[in-house]
Amino acid sequence: MSIANHFPIWDKLTESQQARIAELADFRKVPAGKVLHDGGPNCLGLVLVRSGQLRAYMLSEEGREVTISRFFEMDICLFSASCVMPDLQADVMITAEKDSEVWVIPACLFQNLMGESIALCNYTRELTMGHFSELMWLMEQIMWKSFDKRLAAFLLEEAAVEGQDVLSLTHEKIANHMGTAREVVTRMLRYFQSEGMVKLTRGTVELTDKKRLQILGM
Amino acid sequence: MSIANHFPIWDKLTESQQARIAELADFRKVPAGKVLHDGGPNCLGLVLVRSGQLRAYMLSEEGREVTISRFFEMDICLFSASCVMPDLQADVMITAEKDSEVWVIPACLFQNLMGESIALCNYTRELTMGHFSELMWLMEQIMWKSFDKRLAAFLLEEAAVEGQDVLSLTHEKIANHMGTAREVVTRMLRYFQSEGMVKLTRGTVELTDKKRLQILGM
Repeated sequence: MSIANHFPIWDKLTESQQARIAELADFRKVPAGKVLHDGGPNCLGLVLVRSGQLRAYMLSEEGREVTISRFFEMDICLFSASCVMPDLQADVMITAEKDSEVWVIPACLFQNLMGESIALCNYTRELTMGHFSELMWLMEQIMWKSFDKRLAAFLLEEAAVEGQDVLSLTHEKIANHMGTAREVVTRMLRYFQSEGMVKLTRGTVELTDKKRLQILGM
Repeated sequence: MSIANHFPIWDKLTESQQARIAELADFRKVPAGKVLHDGGPNCLGLVLVRSGQLRAYMLSEEGREVTISRFFEMDICLFSASCVMPDLQADVMITAEKDSEVWVIPACLFQNLMGESIALCNYTRELTMGHFSELMWLMEQIMWKSFDKRLAAFLLEEAAVEGQDVLSLTHEKIANHMGTAREVVTRMLRYFQSEGMVKLTRGTVELTDKKRLQILGM
């Protein structure tokens, strides 16, 4: 259960840097559904995922959500460290989607290490660029793709993440991922069902024609 | 006209690094309206602005545009270096909005320098985080703010950038900044005019009640 096996580019850090991380990183268990970081000015630190699954999302004043990123084993989440991401005006919330184990690395330690280690700095820079690319992709989807395409792509991605075609997802949850209202999701899912692409039961969506969903989602 | 006076953190680079930049940076004049980088896989390099104004925007398959960033004197534009921004699937176009003078720094040189200079790496990392924050803000606007608010905020920003209240902007151009259709812009501007907030003539928009636009744009 050592952080050494989960921290990216561990081998490129000096022994002293490794020792500081090992000493100051705070191991936590986060049950599914728990909010780990609620945006705002407080700076939790960086979160390194040991197991489980986290979700980062934006929240509108009216309470609407849209997922901007998800984090799996060995991913580092920067959004929980608002002090490392200056000028971040938007509030990013982070919750555990599954029972998770994480290390929280103090932001000031990470900030200091980036000033010492060119490997860590470049790793973090590439990570940020990756998030930027994801966000651009998401923006393209939202601005220019119709909702049926987005929903088809989302369902297929969920099936890939979960490794199964029966998804335990309420319409409310899907709406929160996609930044839309529950009614919009329900209407489109019913249309998908009438076309034979999904089968709906209470609390689940089963993908029954992935090929057609794929064509639609392209 | 030395690059030394325009390159950020120049003083934190070694003499050898400075010499390589000075030798390999390519000075160019770019007339207003010219496309500097047309997205796609080709990698122009990083663009450092000496004077003028550049615009980076995304382009949909249907030809709709949305501005994602603007660059003024001493800004470095990373979007023209797709090889430095891996996974960037979206096509980012860059044009000169005004007659501009720029240096183009080869991407491979910049990439090498970031592996050598922790100062340059951290500078670029913070630049990327800044762009990320901007994009989050833009996404919030697009998803959750109504178009009248966005248009009011855009007109006020333009007036601040130009230093004057009479803006030489066609409705087409505004639409391209905001990722919408020309008709939508025209309709809203006419509404603004009927409310006394702007005055429209052929090719210009004059802001006649900035206070109300400010309240609306908040």
